Amino acid sequence: MNDSTFAVLGTGGIGRRALEVSQYKDSLTPVAACDRHGVAFDFDGLEVDELLAATEGNIDNEVSTDGGAATAESGVKQHGEDRGVVASSQARASDDPIREIIDHGDRIDAVLLALPNYEHDFIPRTADRFLEGGYAGVMIDVLKRSRVIDMLEDRSDEFEDAGITFICGAGATPGLLTGAASLAAQSFVEVTDVDIWWGVGLKSGYEDNRGTVREDIAHLPEYDIETARDLSDDEIEAIIDEHDGAIEFEDMEHADDVLLERAGVCDAEDVSVGGILDVRNDEKPTTTTVRVTGTTFDGETATNAFQLGDATSMEANVNGPALGYLKAGVRRNRAGEYGVYGPAELMPGF
Amino acid sequence: MNDSTFAVLGTGGIGRRALEVSQYKDSLTPVAACDRHGVAFDFDGLEVDELLAATEGNIDNEVSTDGGAATAESGVKQHGEDRGVVASSQARASDDPIREIIDHGDRIDAVLLALPNYEHDFIPRTADRFLEGGYAGVMIDVLKRSRVIDMLEDRSDEFEDAGITFICGAGATPGLLTGAASLAAQSFVEVTDVDIWWGVGLKSGYEDNRGTVREDIAHLPEYDIETARDLSDDEIEAIIDEHDGAIEFEDMEHADDVLLERAGVCDAEDVSVGGILDVRNDEKPTTTTVRVTGTTFDGETATNAFQLGDATSMEANVNGPALGYLKAGVRRNRAGEYGVYGPAELMPGF
Repeated sequence: MNDSTFAVLGTGGIGRRALEVSQYKDSLTPVAACDRHGVAFDFDGLEVDELLAATEGNIDNEVSTDGGAATAESGVKQHGEDRGVVASSQARASDDPIREIIDHGDRIDAVLLALPNYEHDFIPRTADRFLEGGYAGVMIDVLKRSRVIDMLEDRSDEFEDAGITFICGAGATPGLLTGAASLAAQSFVEVTDVDIWWGVGLKSGYEDNRGTVREDIAHLPEYDIETARDLSDDEIEAIIDEHDGAIEFEDMEHADDVLLERAGVCDAEDVSVGGILDVRNDEKPTTTTVRVTGTTFDGETATNAFQLGDATSMEANVNGPALGYLKAGVRRNRAGEYGVYGPAELMPGF
Repeated sequence: MNDSTFAVLGTGGIGRRALEVSQYKDSLTPVAACDRHGVAFDFDGLEVDELLAATEGNIDNEVSTDGGAATAESGVKQHGEDRGVVASSQARASDDPIREIIDHGDRIDAVLLALPNYEHDFIPRTADRFLEGGYAGVMIDVLKRSRVIDMLEDRSDEFEDAGITFICGAGATPGLLTGAASLAAQSFVEVTDVDIWWGVGLKSGYEDNRGTVREDIAHLPEYDIETARDLSDDEIEAIIDEHDGAIEFEDMEHADDVLLERAGVCDAEDVSVGGILDVRNDEKPTTTTVRVTGTTFDGETATNAFQLGDATSMEANVNGPALGYLKAGVRRNRAGEYGVYGPAELMPGF
């Protein structure tokens, strides 16, 4: 496969790490990055080190509606007027950074949507802009929620007509672990259970991943996306205190279920996702494990398992796979396969 | 993806199980099967149950040069003159069954080469026949040895010119476990070690898998392909007795190494393959495990692991993955991607 160029929408934790990890990947060139303040382009390849250094500590929490209060409250440093990506010498301010990315779309093989998810239709609406703007290529997100996959699925025909290959849920879970479940399913002719259990230790990564913590809180029984979005930082701290720093989640609305069903691996209802988030330790509170139970053609019942080493960070498990799936998406796109795909559909077909 | 048709060359343990497992797979239709005695065609789909029942216990060990002595010695029942696949009502005798498959190649999307490997150039030579016969489609094998991959690699340009997508080493190991290693590698920016360790319990499957046992013996330090081929059944039994029924292998020449290097996952020398074969118990003597150790982008060293449940048989772990990779190969072929591919190259690209 030839080289692939990609753009990152959003320069929060995921966008920044995706740029960083891409430096280790063969034949993958980051050519554009934007946040809501501005955009950086270099079709010979962005200087990732400069961009990351210039925006270090400048994570835009992107939760406050006025654009500044949340980051100021949390003590994240600002770079004067050059907030966000504009602090990089490669970037410039823009009134409509996404429009600029779309306008250069013919030179961008894939667009990684590392955008916040508090408004759960934000990524579908962004996809609409790319559709309207005539983009043809790969779009990929690392979203977690099943309902967003459904919203993208509703646009499947439009993506096909436009020549867009949309890869959804391509981070860690869904993403890496969905792919692992698909692979582990290969020993079986019928899969009866997929259990995904994750552990994340986020002490030193907390500042960079406030969005993830807030989104996870939305999975607690007492909260949803809307109520979690409205929580102040103090309220989030109080919730964390209540749980002594480690919050356990059960039956999460993670899209692994619909993505595995789409790929024909099992029924969505046979998939369960849960885990423990510890924001006061870097050690994972539990080992991230995928267990796939099924029946073999010769009538045995067994469980195949995939375990991530405890020292692999959430960031490592999101961004490596995301870029791997991105490359797989480019291959599909070049082969003329358009529409919506999940991670399991990019695995050898079962 | 539309339906795919496939042919099986060889109706020994692997060929028979591939036909059986294909009945559980969507959009995969077996249309031809042959052994050296004859060939069965049905482009609406072979009746697999009839074919398997008619040839039950009729495994052609295919090691003796005269074609009959070994099976007679081992007590496997014969079906008179209708030896091998010809015992099926769907089959007929043929002087050149492979030629007949090639002549019908335009209706066969993929050819699974489930052929014996005592002459390690048998599969490359068979591939040559398909090249000469003008076949364009997928060819796939479940070979283990690195040197055979090299021989196929030598034909890469011819495959590309002919429109053949050759998938090699697509069984359990290499195959399922190679894919698992490729997936597990995604958390890392550098992979330092891949350790594959397998356990096979083959008591009740021994009769059907004599070829596999013989091939494994060739991996012992005192033997090679040539000397293992020349062993009588009594000599094999003596070797098994010496090891009390369970033979341990280290540093096997399994092609996982070259296949992972081809896919850019790690250097071949960082891959090690070993395991234990127990022919007196059905329980696995050890749990089949792939361990991938590497460094993350954020500087941590960790090990991701993939484990197969002890109740999954070797047959289940070979044939499900082989058919999955076959379908992936058809997709590549239809997209115009020709040449030689290993299992890791069919995974999302890293």
